[in-house]
Amino acid sequence: MVDVDSSIQSVKGFRVAGVHAGLKKDGARDFALIVSDRNCVSAGVFTRNQVKAACVYLNMHHIQANPGQMRAVVINTKCANACTGPQGMVNAQDTAEFVAEAVGCKREQVFVMSTGVIGTQLPMDKIKHGVELSFAALARENWEDAAEAMMTTDTRPKLASIKTLTVDGQYTIAGISKGAGMIAPNMATMLGVIVTDAILDVEMAQQFLKEAVNVTFNRIVVDGDTSTNDMVILMANGASNTRLQTDYDIQQFQTNLTAVCRKLAQDIVRDGEGATKFITLHITGAADDKMADKIAHTIATSALVKTAFFGNDANWGRIIAAAGRAGVEFNPNQARLWMSPGEELYEGDPGLLLFEKGMPTDYSEHDASEIIREPSVYVTLDCGDGEGEAIIWTCDLSHDYVSINAEYRT
Amino acid sequence: MVDVDSSIQSVKGFRVAGVHAGLKKDGARDFALIVSDRNCVSAGVFTRNQVKAACVYLNMHHIQANPGQMRAVVINTKCANACTGPQGMVNAQDTAEFVAEAVGCKREQVFVMSTGVIGTQLPMDKIKHGVELSFAALARENWEDAAEAMMTTDTRPKLASIKTLTVDGQYTIAGISKGAGMIAPNMATMLGVIVTDAILDVEMAQQFLKEAVNVTFNRIVVDGDTSTNDMVILMANGASNTRLQTDYDIQQFQTNLTAVCRKLAQDIVRDGEGATKFITLHITGAADDKMADKIAHTIATSALVKTAFFGNDANWGRIIAAAGRAGVEFNPNQARLWMSPGEELYEGDPGLLLFEKGMPTDYSEHDASEIIREPSVYVTLDCGDGEGEAIIWTCDLSHDYVSINAEYRT
Repeated sequence: MVDVDSSIQSVKGFRVAGVHAGLKKDGARDFALIVSDRNCVSAGVFTRNQVKAACVYLNMHHIQANPGQMRAVVINTKCANACTGPQGMVNAQDTAEFVAEAVGCKREQVFVMSTGVIGTQLPMDKIKHGVELSFAALARENWEDAAEAMMTTDTRPKLASIKTLTVDGQYTIAGISKGAGMIAPNMATMLGVIVTDAILDVEMAQQFLKEAVNVTFNRIVVDGDTSTNDMVILMANGASNTRLQTDYDIQQFQTNLTAVCRKLAQDIVRDGEGATKFITLHITGAADDKMADKIAHTIATSALVKTAFFGNDANWGRIIAAAGRAGVEFNPNQARLWMSPGEELYEGDPGLLLFEKGMPTDYSEHDASEIIREPSVYVTLDCGDGEGEAIIWTCDLSHDYVSINAEYRT
Repeated sequence: MVDVDSSIQSVKGFRVAGVHAGLKKDGARDFALIVSDRNCVSAGVFTRNQVKAACVYLNMHHIQANPGQMRAVVINTKCANACTGPQGMVNAQDTAEFVAEAVGCKREQVFVMSTGVIGTQLPMDKIKHGVELSFAALARENWEDAAEAMMTTDTRPKLASIKTLTVDGQYTIAGISKGAGMIAPNMATMLGVIVTDAILDVEMAQQFLKEAVNVTFNRIVVDGDTSTNDMVILMANGASNTRLQTDYDIQQFQTNLTAVCRKLAQDIVRDGEGATKFITLHITGAADDKMADKIAHTIATSALVKTAFFGNDANWGRIIAAAGRAGVEFNPNQARLWMSPGEELYEGDPGLLLFEKGMPTDYSEHDASEIIREPSVYVTLDCGDGEGEAIIWTCDLSHDYVSINAEYRT
C-alpha cells in the first residue's frame, strides 16, 4: 500500500483558489478555480448517464479538441446546469469564456464543472463575479480552499497527494474531489480533479486515468444513483520537467495515481450522505468478475442491507438474500460469508464465519455484534463457484440520508 | 374498474382462523390456517430469488404433485425458515404434517407459508400449538383474523373480495395478503392467498393467476428487495357449483381476480414500510414495454427519488436522472413529464407538465407543491420514443423505513 497525504502543499505550475461567489446562502466557499501556468495534457472520464449536464458535453468537446492544451478548471456549486436546454450550453460556454479572458487562453482550453440542483440556469452574474474573485485569489497553496469550495452535502473537503522521486527528478500527483450523494459505481461517479507536474503524453494520460478510475471511483456506492454531472479529469502540465523514462516509472505513476484516486474515492464513501459506517464488500468465487460485480452492486444498493448496517445488525440473511436476487448464478449452499472489523483484512484473515452450507454457523452473536459496531466492517462473500472477484466500498443508510435528501431543495 | 370489497364475508367451503401461537411477544395473532372442506384446484407463483425458503421448495413440490387436490394453507410469522438447511426442510414438512393430521388429509395437500427472520429454525412446539389452536378456531367468517395473523411490519390487515353472478350461479373470489418490506416487482413479491368457490381446472387456474399477478403484484415496489419467501397461491374448491361456461365468464373471472389482486397489491404499497405517499409511475412512449419497465423500476428504486417524494419535493430532475441511468435508450430532449394528484388520472389528463424538450417548463412551483403534498401522486413520463408502456406502484422512503429496518431483529 502506498502512503498518501491527506493534504496538498503545492504542485508545480498550478495555482488554485476557492472563494464565496454568492451561490451558497451561508457565505461558505462555493466557487473554485484551478489554473496551470502552461498547457496541460489532459484526460477525462465522464458520466454514463444519458442525461448529461451542459458542462459535461462542453468538456467532452474541449478535451477532444485540445487534449494537449488544457489550462484551467472552473467549478461552481448550487446549480448543476443539467436539463437547462440551449441556454444552459450558452451559459457553460460563457463560464469558460470568462475564465479564458482572465487567464489569457481560448475558451476551449477550460474545463467547466457544475454541481447542485438540476433544471435551473446558472446565475451568470454570480458566475462572472466568482471568476473575478477566484482569479484574484489564485495561489499555489490554496488547495484546501478549492476542495472546500466544491463541497455540496459533503461535510469535509477531500484532498490527496503523493510526491515521487525518479531518476529524472521529482513529481507530484494531487487531487481533490466531492461526492456525498448520487454515487454509483458504473462510471466517473462524482467530481474529481487530479493534477500532476509530471510530463505525460495524451495516450498515457487517458490510459492512466481510465485504469485508476476503474478500480477506485467506479468501486464506490453511496445510494446507487448516477449523477448527470459526474466526471474525473487528469491534467499534467509537465512543470516538474520529470519524464517517466522506464517501465518501472510508468508502473509507479499508475500505482500512485491509483492510490490518490482510491483515497479520494474512499473519502467520498466515508463522507457519504448520512453515512455512519464504511463497508467493504469483497465478493470472491463468483463465476466471473462481472458476476461478482453484479452481486456486490446488488448488495451495496440494497436498502435492507444498508439499514441493517445502520442498526448495527450483522444481518447476513439480507446479504445472502440480496445476492440471490442479483440476476446471476448464486447457490447459497456453496456460499460462505465472513465479517471482520476494519477497512482491510489483517493478514488475509476474513474474520468471523457467519454462514456456510446454506445456513448460519453457530457463531456467537456477541462476537458478531462486536464486529458490526465498528465504524468499518469488511464483508467477504465466497460464492464457491469460480474465480470471479469484485470489491465495492459502500456505506449504510441512515436517518440523516433521508433528511438530507428529503430537504435538499428547500 | 370493478368494485372490490375491502372485507371478506365468507367463501363457500372454506374455514379460516388467525390465532396467537406464542410467536409474537406482544400477544398479537401470529398464526393462520385456511382449510377447504374439499380438494382444491390450485396454482402458485413463487419467488425468483435463488435463495428460497424451505417452505417455498415444499410448496413448489406439493403443487406439482397435487395441483387438483390441495386442502389447506398454514402461515406462521416471526421465522422465515430460510437458510435453515436440512432441518428447515424437515420442519416445513412437519408443519404440513401437523395440519394434515388435524384436517385428515395427506401432508402433500398442505401449503406452508413462513415470514420473518432469515436463518433461525421454526420453534416446532409453538408451531404444533398453533395448528391445534387455529384448527379449533376455524370458522367461515374469520378472514380478518387470518389476515391479521400473517402481518409482520404491516400496520393493517389486507383483504379483498368480489362476488360475481353468472348464468350458472354465483361465485366469490377472496384474498388476503401481507407485505410491507422486501417488495420488488419481478415476481410473486409477498405472501398472498386467493381462494374461490368457482369451479376451475388446473390449467385455467395457473393461467388466471399468472396473468393477474403479472399486472398487479409484479407491478409494486417498496424497496426493491425481493424476499426469499414470496409467493401467491390460488385455491379453487368449486363449492359454489358455479362453472365458467362462456368466454364472457372466463374473461370476467380474469378481470375480477385481477381486481382482487390489484387491491391487495396496492394495499401493500399503501402500507409499505414507513410509506407516507402512494406513487403511480406511468411510463409511456418507450421503445418497448420491457424498456418502459426498466425505466419505471429504476425510478421506483431510486433512493434519491423516493426521499424527494417524502420531502414533498416535486423533483422531476431526479426522476429524469434516474431514467437516464436505467440502462436503456432514453433521450431527455424527447421526454415529457407530468404530475397529477390521486391514484388515477381524471379523464386521462396527466396533469401539470413539468418537463419537456430537455428542460423544465415554466410551471408554477406553487401548483407543483399542491400536487406533491397529496397522499397519492400520479407521475407520467412520456419517453417520446415508441409504444412501450409500463406502470409501477411505489411509495416514498421515510425516516420510519430506516427505523423499521435498522431495528427489525432487535
